Amino acid sequence: MNEQVTAYLEEHHDRFLEELKDLLRIPSISADSKYANDVRLGAQFIHQQLESMGCDTELVETAGHPIVYGEWLKAEGAPTVLVYGHYDVQPPDPLDEWISPPFEPTIRDEHIYARGATDDKGQMFTHVKSVEAWLKTVGELPVNVKFVIEGEEEVGGENLDEFLKNNQDRCRADVAVVSDTAQYGPGIPAITYGLRGIVACEIHLQGPSQDLHSGVFGGAVANPVNVLARLIASLHDDAGHCQIPGFYDDVVPLTDEERQNFAALPFDDAEFAQSLGISGTFGEAGYSTLERRWGRPTCDVNGITGGYQGEGPKTIVPAKASAKITCRLVPNQNADAILASLESYLRGQLPPGIQLTFRRFHGCPAVVCDLNSPYMAAARRAVAVGFGKEPVLIREGGSIPVVGSFKEFLGIDTLLLGWGQNTDNLHSPNEKFSLSAFRQGILASAALWHELANNS
Amino acid sequence: MNEQVTAYLEEHHDRFLEELKDLLRIPSISADSKYANDVRLGAQFIHQQLESMGCDTELVETAGHPIVYGEWLKAEGAPTVLVYGHYDVQPPDPLDEWISPPFEPTIRDEHIYARGATDDKGQMFTHVKSVEAWLKTVGELPVNVKFVIEGEEEVGGENLDEFLKNNQDRCRADVAVVSDTAQYGPGIPAITYGLRGIVACEIHLQGPSQDLHSGVFGGAVANPVNVLARLIASLHDDAGHCQIPGFYDDVVPLTDEERQNFAALPFDDAEFAQSLGISGTFGEAGYSTLERRWGRPTCDVNGITGGYQGEGPKTIVPAKASAKITCRLVPNQNADAILASLESYLRGQLPPGIQLTFRRFHGCPAVVCDLNSPYMAAARRAVAVGFGKEPVLIREGGSIPVVGSFKEFLGIDTLLLGWGQNTDNLHSPNEKFSLSAFRQGILASAALWHELANNS
Repeated sequence: MNEQVTAYLEEHHDRFLEELKDLLRIPSISADSKYANDVRLGAQFIHQQLESMGCDTELVETAGHPIVYGEWLKAEGAPTVLVYGHYDVQPPDPLDEWISPPFEPTIRDEHIYARGATDDKGQMFTHVKSVEAWLKTVGELPVNVKFVIEGEEEVGGENLDEFLKNNQDRCRADVAVVSDTAQYGPGIPAITYGLRGIVACEIHLQGPSQDLHSGVFGGAVANPVNVLARLIASLHDDAGHCQIPGFYDDVVPLTDEERQNFAALPFDDAEFAQSLGISGTFGEAGYSTLERRWGRPTCDVNGITGGYQGEGPKTIVPAKASAKITCRLVPNQNADAILASLESYLRGQLPPGIQLTFRRFHGCPAVVCDLNSPYMAAARRAVAVGFGKEPVLIREGGSIPVVGSFKEFLGIDTLLLGWGQNTDNLHSPNEKFSLSAFRQGILASAALWHELANNS
Repeated sequence: MNEQVTAYLEEHHDRFLEELKDLLRIPSISADSKYANDVRLGAQFIHQQLESMGCDTELVETAGHPIVYGEWLKAEGAPTVLVYGHYDVQPPDPLDEWISPPFEPTIRDEHIYARGATDDKGQMFTHVKSVEAWLKTVGELPVNVKFVIEGEEEVGGENLDEFLKNNQDRCRADVAVVSDTAQYGPGIPAITYGLRGIVACEIHLQGPSQDLHSGVFGGAVANPVNVLARLIASLHDDAGHCQIPGFYDDVVPLTDEERQNFAALPFDDAEFAQSLGISGTFGEAGYSTLERRWGRPTCDVNGITGGYQGEGPKTIVPAKASAKITCRLVPNQNADAILASLESYLRGQLPPGIQLTFRRFHGCPAVVCDLNSPYMAAARRAVAVGFGKEPVLIREGGSIPVVGSFKEFLGIDTLLLGWGQNTDNLHSPNEKFSLSAFRQGILASAALWHELANNS
């Protein structure tokens, strides 16, 4: 790796951290329309960064939040890398569980705490800074780079897909790079070669036209909350197997080699449970915890609401109830088919007096990438440079829809180079990102441009 | 019945109505501390009425709103009747739905419209006026009467129980009379001889110490909302029978005679469903709608909450979930035993990683009064005198805790003589009370004193 680059990274690291803090102060919550202006401020921040380091840029307007596009394409004959990230963040609720406020980045215990610290502002920013280092020292990059940084990752927006579909030439690349996953553990860097997909829906049950007195009417009308509970309960059997008809039909099972690899990773079920504050794990019978998280589909309720939720009792039969449900998918499962089956399964269980509204949200399929590609080899070397250790090859339980989109619209694989940790509280209060991971990630990214060029 | 009394009722009826209007003009809203002075004015109005007709009275101060006590005890050897009512009213919101202002009593369509018209000022006042009629004409009552008119019925205050407990000798009576229920329908006077009881609890499930990413962790930890749904679903079988162990063990079943009586009442299931905005009724298999409402216990969720409830999807495994549950009880069911069984039933179903907190609220037992008592016979004759028609004998699904208190503290049954209609909009805008019911109720009450004396 170029010594000027590494020296620059060292010299400017404190500024990088201050800039990251500035970015984290922006409450770019894409799910909540009250924050639309802050989301735009997040986009403008990244746009300004790319522009000032010498990229050709555009703040691309969409039907929703803008996409930041930036390119540096002067490495003739070298491969082209598409760097993807997102500047939007999850809502910070519940607010009262944050030790320091979600949008006041705070350093403690060698971590930076803020909503978006690891997901994905802190991780995404490593690639911005590594490109800056090459351009400000060597004056050029070993590869061509195209940045696509979006603002709707946390809401599953469709505007990025729209952009990719309509800008296939502009976005054309040999491989994509995304840092929005995690290392396997502290001191165990990893490359993620598989992701679960996701499909989401909301179900709304309407019973009587208004809340009813539970004495005068209770027992004679279907109670929407009780019915909703029965519907949700019907999603699993006692052994944790999902009961949506056809749910497992298309599942590509884990190979014996994968199950052996997973079993060889350091993992302690009791420690895992303890870290989550629970007395034990629970899931589909016949699978280990890592298999359940990485290689098996799920059906989880994300939220439920209905009736009176204030203090004390209130003697009503609620008029309505609703729940948000997501299924995590594994390779070959069809999101649309599963939602259709779920809807019809639920409709088939409704008692008289209950009406179901079923709302589908956008989903994405699962992906598994080629472990033997030259890009994968380059990435393994770059991670080793940045983190001082060969990465393990793992799958992840989460979904990164864009990986499927890159495959679909650009025909390319994605290198998932995660600098975070699973204990970073992403989507939870007290989200954080390790200061050393921020430093190592920038170095690995800087090395990646070099290794990818050597490869071709 | 005494002819002097009936003549007096006829002669003074217009004044009675004007006095009722005066009472209805007082916004004695017990729930809202801004109206504390008006609540007191309501008490003083009744106190003044009882005093001026010759009762010994006391405005009894409590920790909350005052209780009006009045007694006339000169009918030596005759039974003693405790007349209960309440002078407080529900808040009138939403105000903009009232056709005439809630505290400006207005006559239209042969009804008096005002907050409290039927619940309970108008109904309670019939007993005040009937006693006046006897005392102002005959000079004495055929029975001894004790009035206990409280000001905290609408807020479920415990000060009445406190008063009863501390004044058992003073309140001692042979039977209680309460007019705070409804006739079965227009032109179908009724005596309510049974009420369901109630028991309430709140269950709280704690899973992981915070919300988790549903991708990273989903499938490997018990989801508190999914588990809560399974717990709630386990409360009933497919036929609507409650599955809490022992739930029905102590239930006094409806007698064949009761079921025949209910079946003989005019009732249309489709009309009932339509009035509630639902396509059909639903409940415990093997029972009619009236049986389900009046004679069978229930287990309804009144509210549920857990996880994300904002706009759009949020991909979490929630940390916690909770629900409020009430069971309506029928005679002989033991509230404490049912809560204990429910708690242990739920605890027995918890997967690893879920902790249950179970919170019990105060409840009250069901009551059914003896249909063959001399008091019931007297009440049936009195209602027939007042309304020109034999009353039907019905039960109600709701709970009137004071009936249980009279049983517990004074050892007496209560005659529930409802002059209202279920369509009187009690607790809703445009509350009303039929002018003819007011007139007939006073006459029935006047007859009741006579019939109860004849009986003893």
